[in-house]
Amino acid sequence: MKITSAKVIDVRVPTSDNMLGSDPFHKAPDYSSAVLHLETDGGLRGVSVVFTVGAGTDWIGHGIQDLVTLIVGSTLEEFCEAPVKLYRRLNDHHQLRWLHDGVFRMACGAIINAMWDLWAKAEKKPLWKLLVDLEPEFVVGCIDWRNLKDALTPEEALKILEKAGEIKVDREEAMSKLGPKAYCTAGWLGLSDEAILATVRKLQEEGFDAFKVKVGLNSSEDVARLKFMREAIGNDQSLMVDANQFWGVGEAKEHVSNYGPFGLKWVEEPIARDDVLGYVELSESFKEESFQFACGEHAASPVIFKQLLKRRAVGYCQIDAVRVSGVNDVMAIILMAAKFGVPVCPHGGGIALCNMIQHYGMWDQIAVSGHSETQLVEYIDFLQDAVEQPVRMKDGHYVTPEAPGWGLEFREEFLRDHTFPGGKIWSSRPKEKCGVHFEFETD
Amino acid sequence: MKITSAKVIDVRVPTSDNMLGSDPFHKAPDYSSAVLHLETDGGLRGVSVVFTVGAGTDWIGHGIQDLVTLIVGSTLEEFCEAPVKLYRRLNDHHQLRWLHDGVFRMACGAIINAMWDLWAKAEKKPLWKLLVDLEPEFVVGCIDWRNLKDALTPEEALKILEKAGEIKVDREEAMSKLGPKAYCTAGWLGLSDEAILATVRKLQEEGFDAFKVKVGLNSSEDVARLKFMREAIGNDQSLMVDANQFWGVGEAKEHVSNYGPFGLKWVEEPIARDDVLGYVELSESFKEESFQFACGEHAASPVIFKQLLKRRAVGYCQIDAVRVSGVNDVMAIILMAAKFGVPVCPHGGGIALCNMIQHYGMWDQIAVSGHSETQLVEYIDFLQDAVEQPVRMKDGHYVTPEAPGWGLEFREEFLRDHTFPGGKIWSSRPKEKCGVHFEFETD
Repeated sequence: MKITSAKVIDVRVPTSDNMLGSDPFHKAPDYSSAVLHLETDGGLRGVSVVFTVGAGTDWIGHGIQDLVTLIVGSTLEEFCEAPVKLYRRLNDHHQLRWLHDGVFRMACGAIINAMWDLWAKAEKKPLWKLLVDLEPEFVVGCIDWRNLKDALTPEEALKILEKAGEIKVDREEAMSKLGPKAYCTAGWLGLSDEAILATVRKLQEEGFDAFKVKVGLNSSEDVARLKFMREAIGNDQSLMVDANQFWGVGEAKEHVSNYGPFGLKWVEEPIARDDVLGYVELSESFKEESFQFACGEHAASPVIFKQLLKRRAVGYCQIDAVRVSGVNDVMAIILMAAKFGVPVCPHGGGIALCNMIQHYGMWDQIAVSGHSETQLVEYIDFLQDAVEQPVRMKDGHYVTPEAPGWGLEFREEFLRDHTFPGGKIWSSRPKEKCGVHFEFETD
Repeated sequence: MKITSAKVIDVRVPTSDNMLGSDPFHKAPDYSSAVLHLETDGGLRGVSVVFTVGAGTDWIGHGIQDLVTLIVGSTLEEFCEAPVKLYRRLNDHHQLRWLHDGVFRMACGAIINAMWDLWAKAEKKPLWKLLVDLEPEFVVGCIDWRNLKDALTPEEALKILEKAGEIKVDREEAMSKLGPKAYCTAGWLGLSDEAILATVRKLQEEGFDAFKVKVGLNSSEDVARLKFMREAIGNDQSLMVDANQFWGVGEAKEHVSNYGPFGLKWVEEPIARDDVLGYVELSESFKEESFQFACGEHAASPVIFKQLLKRRAVGYCQIDAVRVSGVNDVMAIILMAAKFGVPVCPHGGGIALCNMIQHYGMWDQIAVSGHSETQLVEYIDFLQDAVEQPVRMKDGHYVTPEAPGWGLEFREEFLRDHTFPGGKIWSSRPKEKCGVHFEFETD
């Protein structure tokens, strides 16, 4: 099956209108995606997204457009033979690698993820099932080990997969009935306590018992919100906080030192995404507390994950589906997390991120860590109308996905209306609320 | 003075034709720059570049184009009042910051650097002189301290500047006669020993006594080259090696353990750019050796520098002029290096990078560290025909730059001929040697 053409669609949703997704840095995000469609001569379409929060989607789209010129004309079979070849061809392009992580790695990931989507569709399997059915040796061969071996060797990875393989059939059967357990982000910073509580109550009725709120701006307000939330949900349910990198190491210590009474499960992104030694320092400073630190949605490469996991500086590993270079990178991260016993709790949200991460939760819990005792997969209950197969939830769990591939088929009407800047949602919007022109006073 | 328009020019030089600049990853770089011209109503033009190695220059150009829409119409005076405001406006844009380092931070840096260029030109001063003349409080106010204070506080930075200020007049006078001491990268990986030696001999005649060679592919070949080089230059001159991130931590240890006999000054980029804990491990493993580790040209943010400096995991701090967000970020890094006593040895090369870094060498050695005892500023002796004011060297030192601003005025003919893809150098070149299509088999 040959890739015959590629299309990148810049899709943005004006979520800032009701402050969904807001945090101290991303004050008014417009949830967006660079959507990649790889067309083939085999009647199948490979789909992936790179999630963003509005402005900049075109930057990633520009990059993807450049990279796809390399794979139009190549075949799915070439990819399936050794996915690491495409991974290296893109990530180690001898000129482009100068561009580093961020836009470049995400653009590479878009292509890799679309190829995996195509493969799963060709096999008529959801992505998780394709991954679960891969031989351990093949999985190990998908990974770029160059910078990771001091934390996990290919031999160790093989053993992890083989050990999980012993109970894989049972695990798959169990998870075919009910997918990964989920948690919800309910407390967006721009919302009132009452609005958050209303969301929480609705989610509790649906079976959720783990909730995350945003913190960061004002310590006493944050503490008041945590008290409010803990009282509202009771002591048996899980409460997490997310500071979205707003603090320096010193401020993080001050803020977090007030969190003891609230029985938190984790404190997410207290500091900058690349401050590994800061995470080491925080995790040592608060090792007596009930909570642990969590991050990953902004960890820009497997090398950052490697360091955090090897030093056990994070207690929860929050992989993202589109921040790193696709399935191949995420495989490496999940395997490293398994070695160090750190639960994989993927980052969700955005446009269709939840559709993707449910597959990683499945693969981890069936074929890598091989259990579901400690993991929580993020679920955000909006923008599911974007896709033909919305994520489905049951009793606070993901319903096991059955659609082939990632299950990322967008509704044509959604794409048309939300295309930036020409779609009807955007063409009539004032310029000062569009893309780069949508500014806030910085602190 | 108002910014009236902006132009981004994608300029590439087919340096791959003679393998200049080659290393294990960047096998055939085409030295390139996204050149930014900010036009004003005051008769001055603000100029900056983002250096790349070919493909991807357009990715950065796309980003700069997006960002400049924010500053066209703004004034130089607004910028000069508090440069940190523009820094935050760009880097902390509430939607764009999702794009991280790499393309995004470099594009922000392009704009910030062009504004500093404009300011220096308005003052009729070379950039270094503008920086030297700034009040310590003003310098401290230029820096985004959010993630840095655990390594260096604003108060400590102020003291460093005030202390250096006591001898600033003398230091400036000394350095007005002869600028920063330089070293040369002579041993590109694609060249023969003989070709390298010919370059070294020529450079020695010009007064240089410090040379760097590339290593990484084959340990015994590397050792043979080091032996050859050390014998060729004698024991009194400095020899450094650069592995360009080719190794994992384990391989780095193996390779580097063979380097003892050659009296190296530093081992540059043995491992991945973001492997802070790897650098910590290497620096501890080889603490008895004469050499220290060096990196920075690919350190994507001040936070990475912070960690390496705070832990003294590098012995030389190789700032780059365009990898981070411009003058403001580099100020922070140079001040952190001063606190921890790590010599600032800027990364040169590329198109016009040397024109920029000489100013940082001047500022550091006059107004921050306040001495010239341990620093070496990289010098690469090609592509100087690109600009109207080439870097000048004397007795192995930079000649103190006198042109206003960065001294980055490109020759119009050079820009016209090298514009990608339409300039005459590129329009006739085979597609498979152009941009993203110029591929190598990856290892």
